[in-house]
Amino acid sequence: MSEWTISALAEAIRTRRISPVEITRACLERIERLDPQLKAFITVDAEGAMRAARAREADVAAGALRGPLHGVPLAYKDLCHVPGLPTTCGTLTREYFLGPRPCTAVSRLTAAGAITLGKLNMTELALGPFGENLHHGDPQNPWARGHVSGGSSSGSGVAVAAGLALGALGSDTGGSVRLPAACCGIVGLKPTYGRVSRAGVMPLSWSLDHIGPMARTVRDAALLLGVIAGHDPEDATTSHRPVPDYVAGLDVPLGAVRLGVPENYYFDRLDGQVTRAVESAIRVLEGLGAKVTPVHVPDPEIVSGCSNVLARSESAAIHVRVAKDRPHELQETVRLRIEVGYHVSAYDYLQAQRLRARLARELVADVFDKVDVLVVPTIPEPAPSYDAAKAGTAQERVQRMGRFSRLTRPFNGLGLPALSVPCGFSLDGRPLGLQIVGRPFAEARALRLGHAYEQAAGWTTRRPGAL
Amino acid sequence: MSEWTISALAEAIRTRRISPVEITRACLERIERLDPQLKAFITVDAEGAMRAARAREADVAAGALRGPLHGVPLAYKDLCHVPGLPTTCGTLTREYFLGPRPCTAVSRLTAAGAITLGKLNMTELALGPFGENLHHGDPQNPWARGHVSGGSSSGSGVAVAAGLALGALGSDTGGSVRLPAACCGIVGLKPTYGRVSRAGVMPLSWSLDHIGPMARTVRDAALLLGVIAGHDPEDATTSHRPVPDYVAGLDVPLGAVRLGVPENYYFDRLDGQVTRAVESAIRVLEGLGAKVTPVHVPDPEIVSGCSNVLARSESAAIHVRVAKDRPHELQETVRLRIEVGYHVSAYDYLQAQRLRARLARELVADVFDKVDVLVVPTIPEPAPSYDAAKAGTAQERVQRMGRFSRLTRPFNGLGLPALSVPCGFSLDGRPLGLQIVGRPFAEARALRLGHAYEQAAGWTTRRPGAL
Repeated sequence: MSEWTISALAEAIRTRRISPVEITRACLERIERLDPQLKAFITVDAEGAMRAARAREADVAAGALRGPLHGVPLAYKDLCHVPGLPTTCGTLTREYFLGPRPCTAVSRLTAAGAITLGKLNMTELALGPFGENLHHGDPQNPWARGHVSGGSSSGSGVAVAAGLALGALGSDTGGSVRLPAACCGIVGLKPTYGRVSRAGVMPLSWSLDHIGPMARTVRDAALLLGVIAGHDPEDATTSHRPVPDYVAGLDVPLGAVRLGVPENYYFDRLDGQVTRAVESAIRVLEGLGAKVTPVHVPDPEIVSGCSNVLARSESAAIHVRVAKDRPHELQETVRLRIEVGYHVSAYDYLQAQRLRARLARELVADVFDKVDVLVVPTIPEPAPSYDAAKAGTAQERVQRMGRFSRLTRPFNGLGLPALSVPCGFSLDGRPLGLQIVGRPFAEARALRLGHAYEQAAGWTTRRPGAL
Repeated sequence: MSEWTISALAEAIRTRRISPVEITRACLERIERLDPQLKAFITVDAEGAMRAARAREADVAAGALRGPLHGVPLAYKDLCHVPGLPTTCGTLTREYFLGPRPCTAVSRLTAAGAITLGKLNMTELALGPFGENLHHGDPQNPWARGHVSGGSSSGSGVAVAAGLALGALGSDTGGSVRLPAACCGIVGLKPTYGRVSRAGVMPLSWSLDHIGPMARTVRDAALLLGVIAGHDPEDATTSHRPVPDYVAGLDVPLGAVRLGVPENYYFDRLDGQVTRAVESAIRVLEGLGAKVTPVHVPDPEIVSGCSNVLARSESAAIHVRVAKDRPHELQETVRLRIEVGYHVSAYDYLQAQRLRARLARELVADVFDKVDVLVVPTIPEPAPSYDAAKAGTAQERVQRMGRFSRLTRPFNGLGLPALSVPCGFSLDGRPLGLQIVGRPFAEARALRLGHAYEQAAGWTTRRPGAL
């Protein structure tokens, strides 16, 4: 039961080889058995999930399928507002985020037939370092207990990797979809800014937040993206661009892809195991016909500096009530990260917006003129142990998280689509990730390349043992 | 020659009753004769205009009309970047604004056949109070010499009212299209935020800037808007909404328009002549079948407070080089308005953005649920004399301008389309203006109502004497 992909399951439900009730019950049983140790969920909605499963089963019997995810059990990071369920945002407050409207992405998945299992664990306000004590328990890396699962969508990574849910939504402001995907050996996609609605999701930073799918295979991520992408009148930042058929696009021949490998920044100070894994991934891609071109990218440290100004200012504005009136409710690291926002000037904020926009234009004009995608590592080292991640002062923990997310963060400020796919393991079996980064709205190309790599390399067929 | 409207002239050119060379020469002669006193132009491009006129004449002979403005001479506020002409932005620097790209709105007018006469006078950086000494001379109100013509698009108002150009572009950040339109007895439209591209135009405030047409009749404004409106890849804030045929829309029957007349703010502390003129305009509209509904609008002072925070912060970021390195080049009032921007916090900036967005949503939901348009005065008193406008300290002049623009400014922060049409005169013959404000992207409805009013009231057939 835990071996299903979304694509295979949806097909099996359509052809009545398995029923929505059967798979939902299996997921709930697995959650009940494994989650007390894994800590992926904050809220499990067994009753609601079973009710939905029976309704979807009735649909199947009536020959009335809702959509491509009919009967597929999913779960969502606990900052998505799903009517009827609490939204803690990783805090101890049951209803921290009471959006005026339901999460559009979840509503679209539900409309496509998906079943909601519950809400997934995350660091406090998605701002806490992922080694921090989580209010709802420390999510365990299914490949290496006692190790972090990445963050801030920590529970999303664990739930999918451990087969508790077939797919999940995460949010990604500096890497929070891709880091847990890489740490947990699954696929995670941060789409282009404006591709997926953020309506009904607690914001961290209006300029940098992205909602993205997390799943076991690239095909599953493509399937989820196709459902959640597209304009939403409730989110003015969403694009009107038509949404391509990402799944059909996977089987388009790859052709001679021009692969940009940055000479600067992205391969500096990596754990040697990461370097080796990504280098062999690039060789696999070359074997598929890709042509490697070394490229120089505009200084990612500057993009990250801009992002930091934006994220801090926007977080301060978003969380002002709790930060000013009830600061004791926040973890020290989270408070520190928000409070610095009150000291940023509007001038610096606006110049940071302009500078990152200019760097994005330059990157697209200069680099994506020469190459079709960039390939870089997702994480600079395998998932650290909780002992290592929790050590030191609050400031040290924040800095450590900054170093761990240094390869994902620039693509939030630049707004580019970035797919993380598993690319092997450390010697002791912790997963590693490869990022495939495209030009704006070129998700289809990144997914196609990721899919071809996945088929050739075979990493995504592996499952964590001992579950 | 000075009696033409754009619509009539374009038709006369199409039917070869007048040639582009003839009308262009007539405009240039009129400029040469009158502009030394009126001071509408900063740059007159006689040579370029005649060259274009001859080319458009050849097109006519060849039966190849470029578009609906074929052969129509226009002029542009001197913050539009038109290749080959200087762009002073009202400063003494010949090339103050060197946009990386030409002004999209001007390019579209040119592509539709318009001829560029030159660049129009404006207050310094469009930030100086319009009573301030203008570097390129004080534009004279064609209806009342010695009086201001409104601002900041001061020259645009004068050029159109005095028949030096058939139409003009202005920019409107707090009323700078509508104030000179009202002061000069012409029609001016601030479109919905996102309706008209600002690419190639010196920004004052990214959040509040709008480009709009100024012309003698509503029909002419509709014609110009139809050419310049629509998505522009060079301006990410432009909407993808289709552009309706505004001119054809003028003749759609009016039906029972629900006219909202605010009970609060917009009729407070007006000159009695303005109150009477606007009240009789409302009676004319009632005579056309409109039904008046008194409405309460969200406090416009709060919207203006938000706008002030946004405008100051954004101006500071835009003009940092001159404000920091060469402050002596700026007028005291302009320097004061920019410098305060460096002391705004990002927190206040972001909260101002959120608050004005919320007020806009509330206004649309609550007020535009009950009424189709709002009608309010454009200016609270007739155009003051230069003596009155120039009196007092820099601070006093800035405050005085703030009071004069208090009826236009809220619609910039709210992003709503606002049309100013002439609605009569003060006892001594200075023009007054009526604003017709619609819901977002409802320009067509405001234009239709303005056109019906104009036909019924007849004010726009009057011309200033003694020119």
